[in-house]
Amino acid sequence: MAAVAELVTTEIEGLFPEQWEVPQNLREAMKYSLMAGGKRLRPLLVIAACEALGGRREAALPVASAIEMVHTYSLIHDDLPAMDNDDYRRGKLTNHKVFGEATAILAGDALLTHAFYSIVQASRRFGVPAECVLSIVEDLAEMAGPRGMVGGQIADMEGEQGLTELERLQYIHLHKTGDLIVFSLLAGGRIAGATEQQLEALRSFGTHIGLAFQVQDDILDLIGDEGKLGKKTGSDLKQEKVTYPYFIGLEASRQEVERLTETAKLAVSEGGFSDSTRLLEIAGYLMKRDH
Amino acid sequence: MAAVAELVTTEIEGLFPEQWEVPQNLREAMKYSLMAGGKRLRPLLVIAACEALGGRREAALPVASAIEMVHTYSLIHDDLPAMDNDDYRRGKLTNHKVFGEATAILAGDALLTHAFYSIVQASRRFGVPAECVLSIVEDLAEMAGPRGMVGGQIADMEGEQGLTELERLQYIHLHKTGDLIVFSLLAGGRIAGATEQQLEALRSFGTHIGLAFQVQDDILDLIGDEGKLGKKTGSDLKQEKVTYPYFIGLEASRQEVERLTETAKLAVSEGGFSDSTRLLEIAGYLMKRDH
Repeated sequence: MAAVAELVTTEIEGLFPEQWEVPQNLREAMKYSLMAGGKRLRPLLVIAACEALGGRREAALPVASAIEMVHTYSLIHDDLPAMDNDDYRRGKLTNHKVFGEATAILAGDALLTHAFYSIVQASRRFGVPAECVLSIVEDLAEMAGPRGMVGGQIADMEGEQGLTELERLQYIHLHKTGDLIVFSLLAGGRIAGATEQQLEALRSFGTHIGLAFQVQDDILDLIGDEGKLGKKTGSDLKQEKVTYPYFIGLEASRQEVERLTETAKLAVSEGGFSDSTRLLEIAGYLMKRDH
Repeated sequence: MAAVAELVTTEIEGLFPEQWEVPQNLREAMKYSLMAGGKRLRPLLVIAACEALGGRREAALPVASAIEMVHTYSLIHDDLPAMDNDDYRRGKLTNHKVFGEATAILAGDALLTHAFYSIVQASRRFGVPAECVLSIVEDLAEMAGPRGMVGGQIADMEGEQGLTELERLQYIHLHKTGDLIVFSLLAGGRIAGATEQQLEALRSFGTHIGLAFQVQDDILDLIGDEGKLGKKTGSDLKQEKVTYPYFIGLEASRQEVERLTETAKLAVSEGGFSDSTRLLEIAGYLMKRDH
């Protein structure tokens, strides 16, 4: 997994062609957050899904770095004073603390936009069929957009009228984190030429590990190690956020993470993939993670 | 032109399929700015370029509304307190004054993301070839991204090191406004199946009317009618922005608008289009506009 993360980092370092005239501080702001020590989970999922179906790792790289850009943009905007107002992330100053608010907003915008450019390069550089790349563009626009990640973010921030707190929690988890995880798996599958049935297996796997990931996040915010997490714990309580431990308790939340992970593993083992090892490894890793 | 603007507005009203679960306040914030009385210039250019080459108007509509979404997102983010800090635009309260800063940031993010979804629908709904739609996605990501509009915006806001003021002014005009105008024309052309030579003619037309548009903007900010513009004039002077009238004077700026418009018209008349009337009309309208 470390080797794959390294590959993705190298791909991201070649973010812009040399000859591109990009203002220096914009370039630095984009790279600062992209290189701030993320786990590269979503790129790993793209590549793992692609390889599970016998696809080529290289062909998945443009989409793998695209999803990391989208994830990074969402963190930069989330951290803004108008949103979560966080000064630190992963133990480093947040983007707007280093570059100022205006540049941080624009660096986020640029990362989101450039992600779509990167996806198209799967066709230009590796000959992935245009029809397939177009489906990936459509998926990303849907899952990162108003009814996907941004919708989840709004619901997290402001609350949604007419929903119970539990419905709202589920909506937030499904969209704010889950959609990009599902996207990553579908995109990797599409690049490898997945059948509809295989895409469904990947979607189910993604939905379940996505939810497990989020419940684990809730748990870590409550009892995690601040040093390992690189951020202060207890922020959910302080911001009065609805969380799984709040609803069902800590022990039941832990069991829920296990149950969701098992369901995810089952989905993938029934997907008819040529090699599911990496996907199962990632699911296991996520369940046990402490940061 | 009014009829086409009307068509685009109808297309935008059908922004999300009915069954889409989008948080209510996000939906409202997106629509508020999309329906705030924009001139629909960029969508008109998409359609005019498409029709100039004998393409179908309907097939251009998804891209026409996409570019209006991108333009609208850029205005919402530009108006934010961390950026230009504007309370009014086109005589109406800006997005963040109505919905709050966090929702305004997210509404902008959602509009940008959804624009890419809309572009893909040109293939889904009207059978535009995937290869062609992919080129439109690539163009938009390039021209709205770090070396396009966002690059121009950064340069406008913070200045760029190592450039003279005139070089910086040209960079800003070329990218902050010009790139989306060029994109609109290229996209319309692509939908109609333009040849490389025709795309070059559209690019030249777009670059010149884009620059003329911006110089005219500089002029209107200096001597325009606040009632017609729906905003205060003199803001460039107050913010000490570099403008064309500042460099070459008001009368020479007026002549520059005319010269650029004539060059644009020449490019289009030599492009070998089946009917350039609409494009020439728009160029003439832009030159004479007072708001």
